Amino acid sequence: MSLLIRSSYVSQFHTRNSKPSSSSDQIPSKSLLFSSFNHNPLIKLVYKRNPRMQSLSFPSLTTVKSSLIDPDGGELVELVVPDSEIEPKKKEADSMPMVKLTKIDMEWVHVISEGWASPLKGFMREDEYLQSLHFNSLRLKDGSLVNMSLPIVLAIDDQIKEQIGVSKNIALVSPQGDIIGSLRSVEIYKHNKEERIARTWGTTSPGLPYVEEHITPSGNWLIGGDLEVFQAIKYNDGLDHYRLSPKQLRKEFDNRKADAVFAFQLRNPVHNGHALLMNDTRKRLLEMGYKNPVLLLHPLGGFTKADDVPLDVRMEQHSKVLEDGVLDPETTIVSIFPSPMHYAGPTEVQWHAKARINAGANFYIVGRDPAGMGHPTEKRDLYDPDHGKKVLSMAPGLEKLNILPFRVAAYDTVEKKMAFFDPTRAKEFLFISGTKMRTYARTGESPPDGFMCPSGWNVLVKYYESLQESDDSSKQQQTVVSA
Amino acid sequence: MSLLIRSSYVSQFHTRNSKPSSSSDQIPSKSLLFSSFNHNPLIKLVYKRNPRMQSLSFPSLTTVKSSLIDPDGGELVELVVPDSEIEPKKKEADSMPMVKLTKIDMEWVHVISEGWASPLKGFMREDEYLQSLHFNSLRLKDGSLVNMSLPIVLAIDDQIKEQIGVSKNIALVSPQGDIIGSLRSVEIYKHNKEERIARTWGTTSPGLPYVEEHITPSGNWLIGGDLEVFQAIKYNDGLDHYRLSPKQLRKEFDNRKADAVFAFQLRNPVHNGHALLMNDTRKRLLEMGYKNPVLLLHPLGGFTKADDVPLDVRMEQHSKVLEDGVLDPETTIVSIFPSPMHYAGPTEVQWHAKARINAGANFYIVGRDPAGMGHPTEKRDLYDPDHGKKVLSMAPGLEKLNILPFRVAAYDTVEKKMAFFDPTRAKEFLFISGTKMRTYARTGESPPDGFMCPSGWNVLVKYYESLQESDDSSKQQQTVVSA
Repeated sequence: MSLLIRSSYVSQFHTRNSKPSSSSDQIPSKSLLFSSFNHNPLIKLVYKRNPRMQSLSFPSLTTVKSSLIDPDGGELVELVVPDSEIEPKKKEADSMPMVKLTKIDMEWVHVISEGWASPLKGFMREDEYLQSLHFNSLRLKDGSLVNMSLPIVLAIDDQIKEQIGVSKNIALVSPQGDIIGSLRSVEIYKHNKEERIARTWGTTSPGLPYVEEHITPSGNWLIGGDLEVFQAIKYNDGLDHYRLSPKQLRKEFDNRKADAVFAFQLRNPVHNGHALLMNDTRKRLLEMGYKNPVLLLHPLGGFTKADDVPLDVRMEQHSKVLEDGVLDPETTIVSIFPSPMHYAGPTEVQWHAKARINAGANFYIVGRDPAGMGHPTEKRDLYDPDHGKKVLSMAPGLEKLNILPFRVAAYDTVEKKMAFFDPTRAKEFLFISGTKMRTYARTGESPPDGFMCPSGWNVLVKYYESLQESDDSSKQQQTVVSA
Repeated sequence: MSLLIRSSYVSQFHTRNSKPSSSSDQIPSKSLLFSSFNHNPLIKLVYKRNPRMQSLSFPSLTTVKSSLIDPDGGELVELVVPDSEIEPKKKEADSMPMVKLTKIDMEWVHVISEGWASPLKGFMREDEYLQSLHFNSLRLKDGSLVNMSLPIVLAIDDQIKEQIGVSKNIALVSPQGDIIGSLRSVEIYKHNKEERIARTWGTTSPGLPYVEEHITPSGNWLIGGDLEVFQAIKYNDGLDHYRLSPKQLRKEFDNRKADAVFAFQLRNPVHNGHALLMNDTRKRLLEMGYKNPVLLLHPLGGFTKADDVPLDVRMEQHSKVLEDGVLDPETTIVSIFPSPMHYAGPTEVQWHAKARINAGANFYIVGRDPAGMGHPTEKRDLYDPDHGKKVLSMAPGLEKLNILPFRVAAYDTVEKKMAFFDPTRAKEFLFISGTKMRTYARTGESPPDGFMCPSGWNVLVKYYESLQESDDSSKQQQTVVSA
């Protein structure tokens, strides 16, 4: 495969948004870098595009940014109203038409209000929706493009549309019934679900988790406008301390004096293959001249499909991995990414990467079949497993992010540990998929030694045992009822 | 609706790819232009985007261009091999694995070989296919984007893939069995039809004409590579003299000393409402200071659905319209656009506009629901009728083209002529759709006076009579057979 835009990958590695070293004599020469990359099977494909476009950089009006990478649009969007304005704003909202939000809507309010989707300032109006759907990007007033691959929209039904009438502003009501903010200068337009689904997922098959949970039951209209929230979104689930906003993350990277941040998006437990990859990436970045590359271990915290491991279990598992020293706590930040999961493969991975730009990460690790799943009705992967990284590497608006394709790790049955797959001795490797891992944990069978740190594994085993128990007890209850 | 990119529409009208007048004292002032546009309901929405981007213009390496607008990529692609190389190239192709083309494949060979899809130099490889499918644009090596909304691809089946094996080059064979060219440095990749259809049409419903005719019966692999054809594609149907290539059109615009070219894409007969719009557009361009705006009346000549009026009938009808003086032959060029029709609405209208940039047109007229059709299985339009012009106005890579939204014309029952629809006296207007028009012609009923010039109308009546006759005779034959 040859990519049109690959021409300028690696040789200018240290000329972009990175500051590889505080003392320039420590920086390896260009040719050295190039050669080092060429011999480095992990990051030989660091996609470096259009260094020319750097000259189109945004004016330095930004209020919140670390020095590593600018947020999209130049300024990090923050939509929580200042303390002094909360009461008058709340009072004003009391008299607005109200729109009740679902749990997933609230996750989007969280995402937008903290600036993960910068420069988006609210749920999309139709012009933004159409650009997102057709071009996976938004054009800014200065002519530049930012990536925006998922429509971030709020659906309402006919009745609510009727109630809103010609009102300019609406109040947003949480699933618990509290007014949590408002949407201003609203625009209502048609919600063509079929077209939205087809263009986002590349299929209209029944069985897409986000579609069935969130789109199919939703109304036939979309409402866009400028968002304001009265206070930062909290979940009170014991995990809020993990939910750092992009602003907080940028501050944390600065506090740690990070000179490179590499983000790892995940929605599964961390096994030693992941750890190998992350530690290896750090090693390579050090070899390249960075002094203090920091890992952002960034599990997705919003909606996931029913058979994924729940967030609280994953967070406990991730803690064990750090306690165990599999990942170095000194150079790792674990935080929750509040977005819901679409399982929209190449379209969604762009969103995952783009949001991490806003959080200040300048390197993004992309795996095989990112945000993919099995086809809901056919016996195949929904997406070509290579399309995610290809599409990501070519996506408009992501030029400033360094994309690090993921090397496949598998269980080396000779060395008895997770290792990078070596095709010359393929038979000695064992691939343990997410499904396989869950089956091990569910059946109580141990995975091979060295697959995952034992304390992390125990978290999973306990979780599946508890599922089994609740299954058993609900079966017993059913028996009682039917008796 | 407010478009993000509308800010700079009109006021710089004469600063871009246009040369409004040879003597600058004839150019209306900026403020005059602006005011004239604001009071002109036809072209009040001339979308003018990102004048800044003009500074990123291509190097002047172009071999073929008129002064009005550069072809995409800066150089018009032409892939017909020079006379001196035909024989050796043909001989070489004789020993290559062969791929038989369908009629629609041949139309694409025609399109690519003449540069309508510049800078595309052949059927798409996977990187181009993915960019087209996900971003409706291709990134060039210099970092700039060109529009490319439809995948222009060649499908092969398992058996042909097997036959090609590791060969680098293949020969292309016409439906008539002649080797007409080759594809070089080929790349074969998976043809995920479901994903291609969903992302191109925004639906996977059965009944999409291009899908049923061309995609569903095609193979499970796509083959991309660099195209060469041994001679210009001809159809020998008596209409080849209408098939001007982009190079020929650019030359013709220069010959006519056009200082603006406005393209009108159509696949239907021209009625007086169309003529009103085209004549009015010319008048406005003259008022703006252009001395010699030329109309490119550009009917689509490739595949169309079964109930559209066939090309030869349409061309005869268009001739009558010009003979009749409804359109001025002095300032109109009638030519055939060789592309097949997708009926893919907002996705396809970008292709229609982009191809006309390559032919040298710097203004493009866009109608209601361009390239749209009824939903194949639901009682509604497949696309929102306004999405075409909205998407077109925001599409990446079309910034240099001036988009002219189409005002709706209808039959004014008081004035007894086609006129721009006036919503204040809506009841006095009669809308005559394409379907309605075809029903008139089919049943022999006359449309209202002033709907179409009589000689043009007669062409349609004769066509539908001939259909009726062949229907009757085939029914008679069936009766004979079944008797």
